[in-house]
Amino acid sequence: MAAARHSTLDFKLGAKADGETILKGLWSIFQEQGMTESVHNWQDHGYLATYINKNGSFRLPPIIRAGAIDRYWPTADGRLVEYDIDEVVYDEDSPYQNIKILHSKQFGNILILSGDVNMAESDLAYTQAIMGSGKEDYSGKDMLILGGGDGGILCEIVKLKPKMVTMVEIDQMVIDGCKKYMRKTCGNVLDNLKGDCYQVLIEDCIPVLKRYAKEGREFDYVINDLTAVPISTSPEEDSTWEFLRLILDLSMKVPKQDGKYFTQGNWVSLTEALSLYEEQLGHLYCPVEFSKEIVCVPSYLELWVFYTVWKKAKP
Amino acid sequence: MAAARHSTLDFKLGAKADGETILKGLWSIFQEQGMTESVHNWQDHGYLATYINKNGSFRLPPIIRAGAIDRYWPTADGRLVEYDIDEVVYDEDSPYQNIKILHSKQFGNILILSGDVNMAESDLAYTQAIMGSGKEDYSGKDMLILGGGDGGILCEIVKLKPKMVTMVEIDQMVIDGCKKYMRKTCGNVLDNLKGDCYQVLIEDCIPVLKRYAKEGREFDYVINDLTAVPISTSPEEDSTWEFLRLILDLSMKVPKQDGKYFTQGNWVSLTEALSLYEEQLGHLYCPVEFSKEIVCVPSYLELWVFYTVWKKAKP
Repeated sequence: MAAARHSTLDFKLGAKADGETILKGLWSIFQEQGMTESVHNWQDHGYLATYINKNGSFRLPPIIRAGAIDRYWPTADGRLVEYDIDEVVYDEDSPYQNIKILHSKQFGNILILSGDVNMAESDLAYTQAIMGSGKEDYSGKDMLILGGGDGGILCEIVKLKPKMVTMVEIDQMVIDGCKKYMRKTCGNVLDNLKGDCYQVLIEDCIPVLKRYAKEGREFDYVINDLTAVPISTSPEEDSTWEFLRLILDLSMKVPKQDGKYFTQGNWVSLTEALSLYEEQLGHLYCPVEFSKEIVCVPSYLELWVFYTVWKKAKP
Repeated sequence: MAAARHSTLDFKLGAKADGETILKGLWSIFQEQGMTESVHNWQDHGYLATYINKNGSFRLPPIIRAGAIDRYWPTADGRLVEYDIDEVVYDEDSPYQNIKILHSKQFGNILILSGDVNMAESDLAYTQAIMGSGKEDYSGKDMLILGGGDGGILCEIVKLKPKMVTMVEIDQMVIDGCKKYMRKTCGNVLDNLKGDCYQVLIEDCIPVLKRYAKEGREFDYVINDLTAVPISTSPEEDSTWEFLRLILDLSMKVPKQDGKYFTQGNWVSLTEALSLYEEQLGHLYCPVEFSKEIVCVPSYLELWVFYTVWKKAKP
């Protein structure tokens, strides 16, 4: 066990000074440092302020703030975690979001959208979970992927010989970055927007979903791989929750009666958010049932919940 | 993308003061904060020192140093990671090590030995990996577990109806803590040191291994679940590496000719340490072959390497 550590930072003032003012100003910094301070009044010789850091605080690695490469990407619940980032591979602003691809020694390239870790090259577990964890038979099936710009799902699904996969991604620049720098995730599937059994539409998925619902277009599987707070070109709803319900509702209009809908949920301990989400599932245009699975996605550094949703069988 | 943030901390000194001395003393703190400072000399009115923090540094959650519950357990390569710890369940010093069991909302109880995260209740993946990832048939077999005081391996193996499992754990207090607080990991298998098909010896495994080797005792499987830097009652070797090779050498004396040895290695990116370890495998009393697997153990927050070692088939 690390011995208690003790470190002092002494500074002497050359003349009498307003120690109280100095202390007040410094307090917030020292509080964060976990330092206790004591001020000794040397009468007219000035003030000696001593700040003591103890109990192994220096055991902690220093935070490298304002460094050239940002290694810190807090978790869904705001915990501080440091990644082994050694290179900024891609950093662009699209009309919709900031797109970074950073290299981690252990996770490979990581896609970070507007500060949220989305997907790393190590994260096949995410793709497998959102595809139903190996329990589905995709051959000869019609599929819709919402979002998915990193190409991970598309890449795995085309291997399984589907009939047709339609992927609707709003941000061309995510595709541009990932087809170049996330090839362990997407392979060559993003090199063309059309393939034998797939097509990628660069569009906002809301109008597309409405169109499909209107046309009566149906899919065997719908996979929601949108960002946690989805982007919209024309936000119709007042709140994120209403928007999520709109997407859910529209998404449940296009699976066949015996079709399935897969989506990622949230961090396993955000129980309130998960409950709210499950509540939304009870308010869709048709009654549905759902199951969930807790999955360890390597680069997330926190356990994640994935949902499978399907229409309740008609009596 | 987060807008650049700007925060100033101003403090005025009531009279002329030795600004340079103050600055020197404060520099190390502000450097860690990533603050730039400028000092304005107001001539005889004193010094105004301004410290500016910018570029989203306040985006980072504050480090809660010297808090009641330590949430920070750095990784193998010294990265700062914050766990969602909300309770100290167990904290004792045994004659060999400090034993903490801390509760994490998502990982359940976590066993931390002398500051190293060893095992959490969420980490079945560790146990499965060190048991050969489902590829082995343990029924009717003789097995030796070195260490394993959290009971995870023993618990999973007795379900598979082995002939006899011998577990050699040096620290009774690890067993005491885990049988009480890690029951999702060990079930009830640590409630007694003897069962139908197992026995737990509270001993240093080195003399036990030497005894078994001398007696010609052989096992189908040997699983090394010792701590990364193993404890010994009488260190015979000068360095940790020599000690690790001693354990490896002794461990390879007790499997049958077609037996297997499983162990955890290290963090996937500690390539030098892993190479050194593999080099040790080439210097044992008999020639061996090995394979390795990279596994995501949920509570580790870093990818881990597991080894399978077996004796080279005789010509």
